[in-house]
Amino acid sequence: MKLFKTLAPAVALVALPSLGFAQDATEAAPDINPYIFTTLLFLIGGFLVFWMAAGFAMLEAGLVRSKNVTMQLTKNIALFSIAAIMYWFVGFNLMYPGDGWTVAGYVGILFSPTVLEPVGLDASAAALDYASVGSDFFFQLMFCATTASIVSGTLAERIKLWPFLIFVVVLTGFIYPIEASWQWGGGWLSEAGFSDFAGSTLVHAAGGFAALAGALILGPRIGKYKDGRTVPMPGSNLALATLGTFILWLGWFGFNGGSQLAAGTVGDVTDVSRIFANTNMAAAAGAVAALILTQVMYKKPDLTMTLNGALAGLVSITAGPLDPTLFGALWIGAIGGIIVVFTVPMLDKMKIDDVVGAIPVHLIAGIWGTMAVPFYTDGTSFAVQALGVISIGIFVFVVSAVVWFILKAVMGIRVSEEAEINGLDMSELGMEAYPDFSKG
Amino acid sequence: MKLFKTLAPAVALVALPSLGFAQDATEAAPDINPYIFTTLLFLIGGFLVFWMAAGFAMLEAGLVRSKNVTMQLTKNIALFSIAAIMYWFVGFNLMYPGDGWTVAGYVGILFSPTVLEPVGLDASAAALDYASVGSDFFFQLMFCATTASIVSGTLAERIKLWPFLIFVVVLTGFIYPIEASWQWGGGWLSEAGFSDFAGSTLVHAAGGFAALAGALILGPRIGKYKDGRTVPMPGSNLALATLGTFILWLGWFGFNGGSQLAAGTVGDVTDVSRIFANTNMAAAAGAVAALILTQVMYKKPDLTMTLNGALAGLVSITAGPLDPTLFGALWIGAIGGIIVVFTVPMLDKMKIDDVVGAIPVHLIAGIWGTMAVPFYTDGTSFAVQALGVISIGIFVFVVSAVVWFILKAVMGIRVSEEAEINGLDMSELGMEAYPDFSKG
Amino acid sequence: MKLFKTLAPAVALVALPSLGFAQDATEAAPDINPYIFTTLLFLIGGFLVFWMAAGFAMLEAGLVRSKNVTMQLTKNIALFSIAAIMYWFVGFNLMYPGDGWTVAGYVGILFSPTVLEPVGLDASAAALDYASVGSDFFFQLMFCATTASIVSGTLAERIKLWPFLIFVVVLTGFIYPIEASWQWGGGWLSEAGFSDFAGSTLVHAAGGFAALAGALILGPRIGKYKDGRTVPMPGSNLALATLGTFILWLGWFGFNGGSQLAAGTVGDVTDVSRIFANTNMAAAAGAVAALILTQVMYKKPDLTMTLNGALAGLVSITAGPLDPTLFGALWIGAIGGIIVVFTVPMLDKMKIDDVVGAIPVHLIAGIWGTMAVPFYTDGTSFAVQALGVISIGIFVFVVSAVVWFILKAVMGIRVSEEAEINGLDMSELGMEAYPDFSKG
Repeated sequence: MKLFKTLAPAVALVALPSLGFAQDATEAAPDINPYIFTTLLFLIGGFLVFWMAAGFAMLEAGLVRSKNVTMQLTKNIALFSIAAIMYWFVGFNLMYPGDGWTVAGYVGILFSPTVLEPVGLDASAAALDYASVGSDFFFQLMFCATTASIVSGTLAERIKLWPFLIFVVVLTGFIYPIEASWQWGGGWLSEAGFSDFAGSTLVHAAGGFAALAGALILGPRIGKYKDGRTVPMPGSNLALATLGTFILWLGWFGFNGGSQLAAGTVGDVTDVSRIFANTNMAAAAGAVAALILTQVMYKKPDLTMTLNGALAGLVSITAGPLDPTLFGALWIGAIGGIIVVFTVPMLDKMKIDDVVGAIPVHLIAGIWGTMAVPFYTDGTSFAVQALGVISIGIFVFVVSAVVWFILKAVMGIRVSEEAEINGLDMSELGMEAYPDFSKG
Repeated sequence: MKLFKTLAPAVALVALPSLGFAQDATEAAPDINPYIFTTLLFLIGGFLVFWMAAGFAMLEAGLVRSKNVTMQLTKNIALFSIAAIMYWFVGFNLMYPGDGWTVAGYVGILFSPTVLEPVGLDASAAALDYASVGSDFFFQLMFCATTASIVSGTLAERIKLWPFLIFVVVLTGFIYPIEASWQWGGGWLSEAGFSDFAGSTLVHAAGGFAALAGALILGPRIGKYKDGRTVPMPGSNLALATLGTFILWLGWFGFNGGSQLAAGTVGDVTDVSRIFANTNMAAAAGAVAALILTQVMYKKPDLTMTLNGALAGLVSITAGPLDPTLFGALWIGAIGGIIVVFTVPMLDKMKIDDVVGAIPVHLIAGIWGTMAVPFYTDGTSFAVQALGVISIGIFVFVVSAVVWFILKAVMGIRVSEEAEINGLDMSELGMEAYPDFSKG
Repeated sequence: MKLFKTLAPAVALVALPSLGFAQDATEAAPDINPYIFTTLLFLIGGFLVFWMAAGFAMLEAGLVRSKNVTMQLTKNIALFSIAAIMYWFVGFNLMYPGDGWTVAGYVGILFSPTVLEPVGLDASAAALDYASVGSDFFFQLMFCATTASIVSGTLAERIKLWPFLIFVVVLTGFIYPIEASWQWGGGWLSEAGFSDFAGSTLVHAAGGFAALAGALILGPRIGKYKDGRTVPMPGSNLALATLGTFILWLGWFGFNGGSQLAAGTVGDVTDVSRIFANTNMAAAAGAVAALILTQVMYKKPDLTMTLNGALAGLVSITAGPLDPTLFGALWIGAIGGIIVVFTVPMLDKMKIDDVVGAIPVHLIAGIWGTMAVPFYTDGTSFAVQALGVISIGIFVFVVSAVVWFILKAVMGIRVSEEAEINGLDMSELGMEAYPDFSKG
């Protein structure tokens, strides 16, 4: 198990004896290369995870109907931007509060100068046993934004823009940083022995729980469930959806690989390599499993299931991408893909309308991935893994539900029936995504 | 202020005492790691800025009408390719002429063998205090190409292909390298104390000035301004435009981060991290500012303004991405986003037809970013910043105007009225971008 | 000439004398930085080549008609996933069998535990004179997948899904690893002095030969060749095709640059830089050559030819991206672009229906690039280069043809006439790619 930032041990200096000056054999200069390597890992990993924001935007734009594409794009660029501001304004310091973790401390941090400028952004404050604070901040920020991206897909095609964005403010400024601090900020879950390497639960299931709360309160799209059957509402652009999936797959190498949090030793960089190989394998296995299963079950392979299968494979391996063998990554990812094929229709049976399948992919496969950690990672247990999932699930679901209820009461969260039928693009934004093409 | 290449100090070797051989305590081997780190910075930064060429292509293809998409795509891949050849053939050596900067020297360089092969591409010529010449060339080339990308968007939907490409030859071979050499080649502007870290003026405003000259000489699209009002001509594919924006945002980490020009010391890599964090913040702030402002002004949030707001935030921070705090990046970027919302209709009032909003985003926000440098960067002044903007502006605008006039006189720069109305794709290229979809 | 993995010499340790501990002048610690740098090269190069899978998907989705887009996307994500699994399950160990290369050895490897888990994935087994095995595996895997991507474009719009995927199983598990092992596994071609730096023949021409065999056996699309003339069937989305080309161009920096297989010395990282610069130049030259040539020949520049020209430039430089000067890269790439313009109609005259132009781009330009190596690379000869092309060509073509024939006999490889006319999306998958847009 790897803890982020506060608990990161002085890996670099320990692993490599300091190299001395030949000129003066009694004095030792610190080796700066591990600091540089780990900083580069965060910067490269960070820009790859940033790229996932584009992946979610394309996936969701491709899976909604053409009349709601502009709105979905607007939500995606806005939510990322809000996450970037809120995580800086509140989240980062809330998530890494240091050792004395108290409610009073939280409030104190909120009003301290460090909220506006994380300590150590300057080179003069560099802690050579880790990485630059700026790179760490940059990397962590992207995880916060990812959590918000998950929500927007589920609630597409019927939620109003501004209430959704206000929810994003709360999610990225408070909900995510608080639950993530329980583990990555050195909080009680990490003390309890919970293990979630890159965030199957902390990021993906958390986003999924927030989405689930929203979906239940918001209700399904008009006409989705009619006379006991589910009416298909096919996505308008599967090329974009496929592009989005490839983007997410690419970004995931940064998501999981960067979560090694160190690249300055032979051991660390070898581990990052294993993580890359396992992440790729889990995605491939999830895609193939969904492809074959849809062929068997429906006699026709299903592209959107295959795409979601790849994503579910990625989510599944995220809790423990380092320890499994490649064969382990294969079966863990494949089960992720199978989960998608079975839970998408299950949700529909429960009349939970999840437009892009984010709940199967991020919530259910995220739980699966978290529970699979003990198969390969020593010192973990199913009980503690379940404790982590349940406590984060309850916290995120309940707080999200409260926020959604308040937003519903205060300003309403759903567009009018007419606006929904005409499409949010024209009714809410007055701008079509594809104005030149006549609708079929 | 950072000067490119010629003036880059021997940062690496100075910062780290050379490590000796234990076997022979009196002899010191040079530390090669800074050379490798900085070379990697250029290669990674370079491929990210390359990726911006795809971003411009997608942004512009999304913002033109469907009947002009093939032409816009053709221009984008052609202009990048021409820039790659011209910057090698002339630009690189013109831009970094060394110390003895004279017109005669320029001409001499043009006919010297180093034009065809930059000195030092081979490992044997490696200068260990900087980075490989090949990586530097690769990185700088991408900046030259970016300048040309800016022009193509403004002039879309009415300019002929070949005159545009001939302009690109002049811009990337001569105009850009000459003005950029004033600063990054150690020329008179850098001597004067001008500061433009990654090119708000040298790249973005310069591209904007060249575009402005073209727009004035080319005139607006048929039907754009009618009876005193502006006729909206909405982009045909906002999903592509959003994708293009995300691509540009991603590429900008390389654009600004790579412009640190060094990554081999704790200080340098920590600075690169600050730049990444600030760049992201400015983009986010620009997007949020434009989103809120369009909601307030027009009662409906505007996606294309939000996209351009993010880009304007990026342009704004580009002149000084290192020194501001994160809060500084926020307000500098936010003003960039506000500039876009106000100057897009202003240009229309002046009947300057800028199809994708490149002049507000790159020219106006570029000037703003350059003028904002003294707020955070010691040793800079508003007067000298203004001097830089004005001198580069006059040079690029006048020379571009002359070139456009010559092209207009010699071969004409505008397609026929009929071709413009039918769309450039069928009339000029005989190839539709979306032949299977009927037009609305 | 560079050999992959097995023959990679202990570059890193040799190039840099081990640095000692000042504390104990008689003992030398190994320098771990070259190991880390080369591992990072593989990881970064690997994710760039992964990204090419998205590039092929977009290129092909853009060049097929809208009624076959879902199928083409399905094939692309499926073939990459299958390649990832097969290369692990069989290919990697088959390709690098070590010194004692025998058929019996091959079979033994297939049933050895190392098939399921390449030796040395753990840090404890790290060989400090190279890079982590995981990163090497990750990088090599992407080359195997690329080979399969080439095939899918040629055979689009008429081949059944499952026979195609079964062919991919054989290609990625056996055909590619066997022929690639002849060179990169230290086999007989590398002993003979054949030189193919990053795979103009081993990857691109090989994929092209497999595609050619398939195209001949599958036959052209219905209506493609009628009364002695070729009926144009324009691609449905040139924006996607252009995006795909840019993605491939970006990924190629990893493809060629990573094939240096070392980044831990001044010489190696300087070489990687040269490769980046040359790769970019060849692509640009290929695009410009095709643009100008189509203008001259057809009076109208052709976007799809220009895109394929860029790709052909990239394929052409892939056999020798290190040794040519930038001028060398220019003319080698330009000839690649010219080849495309001439061979696309030639194939049509021979009634070989290659939907996306993969045979001109990957097979013909791949042969050209391989034959051009001796112009700049010492110790190579046209005869041995031809030997390599011919032997790999015969092997891949014959084995592929046998596999295609078996598939045709056993299950049929072509969809019904009705399915082809209605489009594979509805008839085979029941899912349209763009359901909201009416067809023109």
